[in-house]
Amino acid sequence: MIDTTDDAKPAWTRDEFEAQLRAKGTAYHIHHPFNVKMNSGGCSREQIRGWVANRFYYQINIPLKDGAVISNCPDRETRRRWVLRILDHDGYGDQEGGIEAWARLGDAVGLTRDELGSLRLVAPGVRFAVDAYVNFARRAPWQEAVCSSLTEMFAPQIHKDRLATWPEHYPWIEPVGLAYFRSRITLAQRDVEHGLEVTLDHFKRREQQERALEILQFKLDILWTMLDSIEKAFPQ
Amino acid sequence: MIDTTDDAKPAWTRDEFEAQLRAKGTAYHIHHPFNVKMNSGGCSREQIRGWVANRFYYQINIPLKDGAVISNCPDRETRRRWVLRILDHDGYGDQEGGIEAWARLGDAVGLTRDELGSLRLVAPGVRFAVDAYVNFARRAPWQEAVCSSLTEMFAPQIHKDRLATWPEHYPWIEPVGLAYFRSRITLAQRDVEHGLEVTLDHFKRREQQERALEILQFKLDILWTMLDSIEKAFPQ
Repeated sequence: MIDTTDDAKPAWTRDEFEAQLRAKGTAYHIHHPFNVKMNSGGCSREQIRGWVANRFYYQINIPLKDGAVISNCPDRETRRRWVLRILDHDGYGDQEGGIEAWARLGDAVGLTRDELGSLRLVAPGVRFAVDAYVNFARRAPWQEAVCSSLTEMFAPQIHKDRLATWPEHYPWIEPVGLAYFRSRITLAQRDVEHGLEVTLDHFKRREQQERALEILQFKLDILWTMLDSIEKAFPQ
Repeated sequence: MIDTTDDAKPAWTRDEFEAQLRAKGTAYHIHHPFNVKMNSGGCSREQIRGWVANRFYYQINIPLKDGAVISNCPDRETRRRWVLRILDHDGYGDQEGGIEAWARLGDAVGLTRDELGSLRLVAPGVRFAVDAYVNFARRAPWQEAVCSSLTEMFAPQIHKDRLATWPEHYPWIEPVGLAYFRSRITLAQRDVEHGLEVTLDHFKRREQQERALEILQFKLDILWTMLDSIEKAFPQ
């Protein structure tokens, strides 16, 4: 629906809005120097371990973020789809889930379960960034929390890059540890479809659409800042 | 673990504590005059419909409450068990879930889906009570939110009573509409086991145990107040 009331800018069409969201990919942490270095083989074992241990803090907070979306969402159909993310990450029945898969990546890079689970390698800046994400999801309208998840639009490529480059650059990492990246390629795709549907439906007027871009930027900043902090904490 | 430090009262043993929690059953809304009247055949069709429509507001808020528990709970094993409640209520895959089952109860007592879904029959006092429950779950430590769910200890009997008395007293209600009550008898049992385990493990010192009793009383007050409001809104 095009809204041209008053002197407000006209709303973007659905396709234009989606294109604007996707254009934010230029700020995705796939372009962060630390990520570039990681995927071109320039990281030490300590840096890889540091990244895995820090990113684990993000992983274990994702179900809390998704619980917040459910807690704020009065629409049952949305909840029925969103709860799948919690099942994916925490595991369900025989499925061990994404957090355990990440812990196996930790095993593969030589982190003990205690080093990983104790969170003692997690940099303060990483905690603050991740906590900001969870707190946003708890307090914002659920559609805004959903919108903030749209960095997943850009995730399949970052996972594919790791799968394509790590075995060559880091032969000391047991290949079985990379299963998490593989699993997320298809799951991210499914999640993106839902997140986009909610976002394109909800943010209708131009000022709302611009707000959606700001929310996505906020989430991009979280991911980027995490790598800043990791890079600082593990300089070599 | 018995704690006798300082001049504090000694902690109850696990069994004593559970007995104290169960003793709260005397304040369960099974004893509320409106519930007694309902199960002894004294309610009009309007009163039954009013109760079903108002209680629906409670039903649709349960997954939001459970999402809040997940959002606040850093323990994956607990989340893996707790998420089953969301699946039960919202439905999962082919399972239509408890909210839809309640809507079918609405059908059976002659409420249209619009009357039910619009929430226009919901009394303000019912809204306030239910909202107090969800907000408590959002803001309290997750173990306290879990503790507040323990009114489920007393739920199987209230469901059994309805199944035993309604077909005789209210033959105008289609029996298929009572499926929700039947489904909750076993599910409530499973949920109680988990809720009790968390509560007995977490509230250790006597003052904590007494806090748990207060939390349970708060939840009992919510259920009781809902019936007060419903009774007032549907006097005949």
